[in-house]
Amino acid sequence: MHLEIINTGTELLLGNTLNTHLAYLGENLLPLGLRVDRQLCIPDGDIIRTALLETVGRADIVIVTGGLGPTSDDITREITAGLLGLPLVENAEVFDRIQERLRRRHREMNTNTRRQAMVPSGSIVLHNDHGTAPGLYFPPLPMPENPAVTSPHIFLLPGPPRELKPMFTDAVEPLLRSICAGRTKLAQMRNFHICGLGESEVARTVETALLALGDDIEIGYCARLSEVIVRVIGNAEQLEAARMIIAASFPMRFFAENEQTMEETVVELLKKFGRTVATAESCTGGMIANRITNVPGASSVLNEAYVTYANDAKISLLGVPPALLAEHGAVSHEVCEAMAKGCLERTGATYALSATGIAGPDGGSEEKPVGTVFIGVAAHDNHPPTVEKHFLNLDRLSFKQAASILALDLLRRRLVHPQSTVG
Amino acid sequence: MHLEIINTGTELLLGNTLNTHLAYLGENLLPLGLRVDRQLCIPDGDIIRTALLETVGRADIVIVTGGLGPTSDDITREITAGLLGLPLVENAEVFDRIQERLRRRHREMNTNTRRQAMVPSGSIVLHNDHGTAPGLYFPPLPMPENPAVTSPHIFLLPGPPRELKPMFTDAVEPLLRSICAGRTKLAQMRNFHICGLGESEVARTVETALLALGDDIEIGYCARLSEVIVRVIGNAEQLEAARMIIAASFPMRFFAENEQTMEETVVELLKKFGRTVATAESCTGGMIANRITNVPGASSVLNEAYVTYANDAKISLLGVPPALLAEHGAVSHEVCEAMAKGCLERTGATYALSATGIAGPDGGSEEKPVGTVFIGVAAHDNHPPTVEKHFLNLDRLSFKQAASILALDLLRRRLVHPQSTVG
Repeated sequence: MHLEIINTGTELLLGNTLNTHLAYLGENLLPLGLRVDRQLCIPDGDIIRTALLETVGRADIVIVTGGLGPTSDDITREITAGLLGLPLVENAEVFDRIQERLRRRHREMNTNTRRQAMVPSGSIVLHNDHGTAPGLYFPPLPMPENPAVTSPHIFLLPGPPRELKPMFTDAVEPLLRSICAGRTKLAQMRNFHICGLGESEVARTVETALLALGDDIEIGYCARLSEVIVRVIGNAEQLEAARMIIAASFPMRFFAENEQTMEETVVELLKKFGRTVATAESCTGGMIANRITNVPGASSVLNEAYVTYANDAKISLLGVPPALLAEHGAVSHEVCEAMAKGCLERTGATYALSATGIAGPDGGSEEKPVGTVFIGVAAHDNHPPTVEKHFLNLDRLSFKQAASILALDLLRRRLVHPQSTVG
Repeated sequence: MHLEIINTGTELLLGNTLNTHLAYLGENLLPLGLRVDRQLCIPDGDIIRTALLETVGRADIVIVTGGLGPTSDDITREITAGLLGLPLVENAEVFDRIQERLRRRHREMNTNTRRQAMVPSGSIVLHNDHGTAPGLYFPPLPMPENPAVTSPHIFLLPGPPRELKPMFTDAVEPLLRSICAGRTKLAQMRNFHICGLGESEVARTVETALLALGDDIEIGYCARLSEVIVRVIGNAEQLEAARMIIAASFPMRFFAENEQTMEETVVELLKKFGRTVATAESCTGGMIANRITNVPGASSVLNEAYVTYANDAKISLLGVPPALLAEHGAVSHEVCEAMAKGCLERTGATYALSATGIAGPDGGSEEKPVGTVFIGVAAHDNHPPTVEKHFLNLDRLSFKQAASILALDLLRRRLVHPQSTVG
């Protein structure tokens, strides 16, 4: 089944709005055995006619996004109906839903909003629970200008992601399942997340074993900040075998699957063990606490956190000895350890994470260049504190992101393999 | 000038990697008077031939991304050369640069990496300072199979954004300037950021005045979390006039232009006035401090910050009276004000920001549903503290983002118009 996506929207081509539809649809079509063969992005307006005509005879399924709204450049519905020779008829149910939606917002129906209730005869309405414009599905039809050729299955979906996503799940997916029944080979994708190793090292370690799982298995690697994602496409058994290979190859470094983040992994472990964490951040400036508190239910594992940017704050809030700061500087193994220990003592948390480094662009020296960072963990677990030194030669924001994921990973390793993190 | 982009990369179509090239290129082509007329995304492999052929006779300029690397599916260079009938010749300078790059990483040249030094004769090398694969520029040439037709200007750029972006600025932009000289009407785009008003209210207030600036002016609106961006495309005088209209219409709410963020605006103001800020965050969990410390030089305006998630932390770190918590609850006007005042006293900062609310998904009640948030500011500026209540009916992460920008905006207004924030 050849599938194409057409994204309409001048704002996408001007760069004001990032096109997230392709990534969302690509990821959600794969479990149906479908891949996106082509994706085209065009401005609002009449060019949608040309783009749709190009797919006839080439594509089995076409998904169009955008251009269903009430403004004058929203003409996807009218153009598609015209191309297939279908008259537009006002649909009473759609009309009522639009009116009800407007009423709740104390707004009046006008000519423009009413136009959204026009439905091409022969198409199927995909109701929109998060906006006024409904989606539409057109089953294959003989093309008016050449009846020997049949149009693809055409889906018209609204542009705003918060409207498109639920419509895809609720209405498009079931239709695609019946369209594809028996015609596609169901594949599954799983992403395995590994922290603290390079892409080539990961590939070298597991590629041979993964490829031996079958001729049809597909492997991909994606390097992120301090993280490598191994993407495996195959059947359920192959994916389970891949998981075992990766877990055995990187017992300390493999931390999550699919969309699970490092902070979700850490919060899950803390909850499971009934533990708490506090943070004492210098160079990461609150990012570690921010990531932890992004996870729902984080309040059960984090009571408080400190950002101690200035030396005075490290002394007064964490009890770092002034002599230590004077002797070793704020960016040092010794101060990082003292920050973690002070944070542990003052908060009563089970674990304390610390980070001190030079995020840049200024503040580096020959001995401690921009990118130098120490991360530390102290714990009430009968093991001494651990401090690691990293060098992250990145822009300021990426430095903070990489340092915070490495700090969270240090805590994760301390939670699951405490002895492995101790010098 | 008709311009098209072709993005190659199976990972883009599978949804593993978000395609950010279109937004980047769209935004950076506009100042040259160029707009992206079509953007196509296709998998790695031979389909690039078909895609390139389709642009011949339609496009003046084609920018292709991806497929220049060392692996077997990287064949953009070979296919383009074949299409234009150009033989590939090893380029000594490119070879040396690749070898030098590999040497620094202690790696050896092999057949695959060496292939990247092959350059189609007649094309111009765009050196890559951030990777091994160089970019290429092909001036228009008669097509071998039909010499009456001329190929478009073709640019081949590497897929990784950190390689593509500097290459675009350093090499592609100057070439495009000379290609476009006198053939495009230079347009400029400016984005105006407004905090705390709705999209329709912003549009209603300024649209008539903005449209009166000329027939050729283009206006767009983009609603973000707690923020509306007004996009104006026009000439330099029109953009300056637009700025004055927007500044006069929203004297309190217009806070930045183009890519400047709220946190950059706030840090700039604090530096300018020689002031400091400390934060006392509950529901935002460190995001406010994290945003402030994303700005280079933030250490001159922020010494310390607190995340006080638990009531005990609010009492011990900020001195919030336990009776206040018992009487009004942690999510209340009174506690928000006490957090800001306590933070101000204990840190010695000039300004203290506080936030307390219910991020969800759990923890709401009938009286204080999920989404309720209080933000507060206290200052050594002879004005009493200010507390604002907002209701942000959003998912957890969006709630944190919206609450943190509203808190930063409260500080911004306090800095520029202190009396306006005082009830």
